[in-house]
Amino acid sequence: MSTRIAVIGVGLIGGSIALAARERLGAEVAGFDESSSALELAISRGALSRRCASAAEAVAGAQAVFVAVPVGALPAAVAAALESAAGDCVVTDVGSTKRAVAAAHSDPRFVGGHPLAGAENSGVAHARADLFDGATWYLTPTSETSGVAYERLHRLLHVLGALPVAIDPATHDTILATVSHLPHVLANVLVSQAAGTLAARERLPATGPSFRDATRVAGAPSRIWTDIYLSNRDALAAGITEAIDRLDGVRRSLLEGDGEQITAWNDEAAADRRRLLEAQLAGGPLCELRASVPNRPGVIAQLALELGRAGVNITDMALYPAAGMSDGVVALWVSGEQAARRTEELVGKLGFPVARA
Amino acid sequence: MSTRIAVIGVGLIGGSIALAARERLGAEVAGFDESSSALELAISRGALSRRCASAAEAVAGAQAVFVAVPVGALPAAVAAALESAAGDCVVTDVGSTKRAVAAAHSDPRFVGGHPLAGAENSGVAHARADLFDGATWYLTPTSETSGVAYERLHRLLHVLGALPVAIDPATHDTILATVSHLPHVLANVLVSQAAGTLAARERLPATGPSFRDATRVAGAPSRIWTDIYLSNRDALAAGITEAIDRLDGVRRSLLEGDGEQITAWNDEAAADRRRLLEAQLAGGPLCELRASVPNRPGVIAQLALELGRAGVNITDMALYPAAGMSDGVVALWVSGEQAARRTEELVGKLGFPVARA
Repeated sequence: MSTRIAVIGVGLIGGSIALAARERLGAEVAGFDESSSALELAISRGALSRRCASAAEAVAGAQAVFVAVPVGALPAAVAAALESAAGDCVVTDVGSTKRAVAAAHSDPRFVGGHPLAGAENSGVAHARADLFDGATWYLTPTSETSGVAYERLHRLLHVLGALPVAIDPATHDTILATVSHLPHVLANVLVSQAAGTLAARERLPATGPSFRDATRVAGAPSRIWTDIYLSNRDALAAGITEAIDRLDGVRRSLLEGDGEQITAWNDEAAADRRRLLEAQLAGGPLCELRASVPNRPGVIAQLALELGRAGVNITDMALYPAAGMSDGVVALWVSGEQAARRTEELVGKLGFPVARA
Repeated sequence: MSTRIAVIGVGLIGGSIALAARERLGAEVAGFDESSSALELAISRGALSRRCASAAEAVAGAQAVFVAVPVGALPAAVAAALESAAGDCVVTDVGSTKRAVAAAHSDPRFVGGHPLAGAENSGVAHARADLFDGATWYLTPTSETSGVAYERLHRLLHVLGALPVAIDPATHDTILATVSHLPHVLANVLVSQAAGTLAARERLPATGPSFRDATRVAGAPSRIWTDIYLSNRDALAAGITEAIDRLDGVRRSLLEGDGEQITAWNDEAAADRRRLLEAQLAGGPLCELRASVPNRPGVIAQLALELGRAGVNITDMALYPAAGMSDGVVALWVSGEQAARRTEELVGKLGFPVARA
């Protein structure tokens, strides 16, 4: 029998999950959206096997549920999905902030999630089966999360092309404030400032490639982004404060005409960019490790979070419960010899026997 | 006889000018660079017909000279080029700021220039013949500029694929502070802030597409950019001040949890972005107009600047001096009926007879 998946909210992300699940997994995908035109388009694009009249109908019988609605609507939509979901179903969301939704649910079947993927355009019309290829997909398991649910979701995301990484909700929101929400704020500031500058001079609004890159995400849909900004407002405000302080420092160097300081600051940015790029490209041959773990809630989450914190990317994982169900073996695939050694070290520290497969 | 062009400084921009001039104009391109390895690479890539031992050697006999060295070295390099250039040669530069170089030269053969083109990578290795296709190329003629020199340069840039637009140096530098230098500063701030945030948490530096777009130009080569930042430091500092004020406003809305304000601010950015994009795409069928102008220095510059200020893009131009040389006809091609009407109006206001061709 093919895997049954439910998608609640078929926009760019929900639609892309549905397309990828059908194409790469041959899954049966049931969908619901408050907009019947979005549902229709999702059907005509082949993203859904079945359109449903309610979220409950889509969720019934599903093995995995993706709730892909705006952040403000998440807690209620996830609660509704959990209510209709089977006992062994995993329910996840794709919201850009994770603290609020994580705090609202302690159900062992729920794992918060957030794919670092997106596009200039929103809506199911722009959905693509390959949207998540190579993209980090953050997961926020907690001590209550079922290991079986986490493993099922992790494997599913791997099949969708993504790289699942466990993270705690607070760290997620702080990091995303810097690497996603602040870039959106700066793009907005830049585009409005440029429009003002150009209008004041009645100039042809000629802009170069640096401006186009820097403002590509400006004015992303308020329907989605007002919720994101508000749900992460403390972390984002702190990020803005840091950016203002940094800008103030640059301005001071400029006004002092200090070429050495400007060069040092610019060289540091070049080094930081290189470091980020290199780290993203780091990898190596896939190594398989097997750890024996007690069969109790939270163990898989603990493992995943510990490795995520250390920067070890779990490329794939598989859980093999032992016959007595009191313990089991978890197989982990990580990229590169260094990551493998680090995994052995960390898993050992947690007190679980671990060995290369 | 083929056109003879000299390029002083064969980096990304100089190399791309050389490639485009050879490919599209069949020009003979002589080049000089302080780096002999850059010269060698330019020869092996087919960008230069001839490598020269000095700038003077490259400039001798050229009809157009492009000085493509870092902004700080421009005034001296332009002066040296003017000294070796023939009486009817046009000398231009490609520096990202225009006030300093414009103030340094009042020679009628000099026209300041700045193509809004570039790439993530610098150096002649990344030069491309199509780098300027569709790119705005700002020109800063003054009242001393020879009309013949300006027209020759304008036509040449048109052949290279660019859209030449006249602008005064001060307006140029103010606009570029917002649409180019500030985006570079923000990219630097963002990349260093993210590197710091991620390092402090020992996290995998996972970033999404918005971050990659926003930081593509971070840490551009200091050898080029320290000069640019310093030569435009007053305008850039003012741009930073405005950005800080805007960021402060967003932060206030966030801390107040004011969803309506956030939505209004974000919607405004979306509208500003749309407006900028639409204006860039505006156009229409090419219209030719002919104006009779007195044959004295500064007239062509005045015309070009007036049209540039009004947002009218001169796609191409040609100058036809009358037999007596006391006056002549300038043909102007502009894009779209609206631009044509605006051109008639503005040229008429300047006191020159004008008609559709």
